[in-house]
Amino acid sequence: MYRIQNFNQLLEHLKNQKLKRRVAVVCPRDQSTQEALKRAEEDGFIEPLMVDDDDLPTAARKAIRLVREGKADFLMKGLINSDILLHAILDREEGLLQPGHVLTQMACSSIPEYHKFLFYTDTAVIPYPTQQQRIEQVRYMASLCRAFGIAEPRISLIHCSEKVDERHFPFTAGYADIIRMAKEGEFGKCIVDGPLDLKTSCSPSSLKVKGISSPLDGDADALIFPDIEAGNLFYKAITFFAHAEIASILQGTMVPVVIPSRADSPETKYYSLALAAILTSNS
Amino acid sequence: MYRIQNFNQLLEHLKNQKLKRRVAVVCPRDQSTQEALKRAEEDGFIEPLMVDDDDLPTAARKAIRLVREGKADFLMKGLINSDILLHAILDREEGLLQPGHVLTQMACSSIPEYHKFLFYTDTAVIPYPTQQQRIEQVRYMASLCRAFGIAEPRISLIHCSEKVDERHFPFTAGYADIIRMAKEGEFGKCIVDGPLDLKTSCSPSSLKVKGISSPLDGDADALIFPDIEAGNLFYKAITFFAHAEIASILQGTMVPVVIPSRADSPETKYYSLALAAILTSNS
Repeated sequence: MYRIQNFNQLLEHLKNQKLKRRVAVVCPRDQSTQEALKRAEEDGFIEPLMVDDDDLPTAARKAIRLVREGKADFLMKGLINSDILLHAILDREEGLLQPGHVLTQMACSSIPEYHKFLFYTDTAVIPYPTQQQRIEQVRYMASLCRAFGIAEPRISLIHCSEKVDERHFPFTAGYADIIRMAKEGEFGKCIVDGPLDLKTSCSPSSLKVKGISSPLDGDADALIFPDIEAGNLFYKAITFFAHAEIASILQGTMVPVVIPSRADSPETKYYSLALAAILTSNS
Repeated sequence: MYRIQNFNQLLEHLKNQKLKRRVAVVCPRDQSTQEALKRAEEDGFIEPLMVDDDDLPTAARKAIRLVREGKADFLMKGLINSDILLHAILDREEGLLQPGHVLTQMACSSIPEYHKFLFYTDTAVIPYPTQQQRIEQVRYMASLCRAFGIAEPRISLIHCSEKVDERHFPFTAGYADIIRMAKEGEFGKCIVDGPLDLKTSCSPSSLKVKGISSPLDGDADALIFPDIEAGNLFYKAITFFAHAEIASILQGTMVPVVIPSRADSPETKYYSLALAAILTSNS
């Protein structure tokens, strides 16, 4: 079984697969989108389908139609406002949302100071996840980790402390249910634990200092953030201060959607294409 | 006018001042507290007053009494549960809380990738600040920055996006009022802006890419976090992944309180003593 722990290994894996995913790209007008597409195309793992129109909502609808008709394997946002694209994605008749599914963002980070990929959700879409939304985040996450060859993903339910505190942080009470569901096999083979903070999730020595035992052993593969503010600060801190490289996509849609923000580098867009590609490799 | 931008400069400044602050230390039983105290004492900026008792609440009360009687300039927690110490601090008759003041945590970080100290609040005490609590955080922050010689502190009100969103993030609507108050001089000379994310607060190029103009110019001195989860992930990410060194204290009490967590290094405790010392240098 392969195991992909960094972006070089991911790209190597995609090249070896020799599988071209067709990407419908909405308004690929900016240089950084074009650069990312060019690299991924040269690597041989994507075939871009450029979709544009003077009317932006029309461009979004056209690209989505390619996916719905089975002509594209996933979607990518170019120079179009996220709101316009999301509006088209969320359209009940003509969109990409799967009934009963939760729309959320999943990401993958390579941090020089961590020994493997660290996956996380959600830094962009759901402001304050409900228990049901969080359960779906764990489900997507377990499956995303498995696509990277992690046989038993270690998923941490993040909170600023290691204590359940129903009064101030009602969501921490729900963590116990999610852990129970994981033990019952609801998410496939995986280990879920929490509440844990970032350090007790990712550092065996922090666990030891605090005298806490956790089945994750301070070796988390993935973090489920309590809210979008926490997730957003995490990802901006690791990219801005810790030289992390990241990739992110939307899940809950019929196919992955690469939806970079304006400030994302061509690198991030390129890695996000790779992330979407590996998730569609069995489709 | 001096300007203190990193811990070396802070320690230099304290040594030059030749002022010994008397620190009441509650249960200095652990090695890392003792190490921090020893270094600070050798540097000449503190004089530790060791307070202990078989009964922990009694030890806490004794130390607080030293402060109330003017015999100690600030307080430090040793090997005692934070809850016990906070309970004694919050006692209406015999505690350290100032009537009408907000108890919150303020911190100072030295991040290798940032060009100066980055101050922030609150990663430990207030779960979800109310508008009134946030106003007090800005007030303390402006005054804390000035103690470091920053003539016009640049304070950022953090949010995951740069848009006010009353529906999903009601607190962002209050940011405008805080900015107006700052312009009216409520917090002394300072510049407050927001909502801004971490990057648009701390990076001129991120501001430019996003086409945003901000009076902070991507050169923030201080960050006010939207909630404790966000603050906690920020500080754990910068210490764990970005080699940041930090110091933190409680504010809103009659004197600063150094209240490290179990997992804090002797270094952090030592720097926190220095932070408390500079804030008491005019008392």
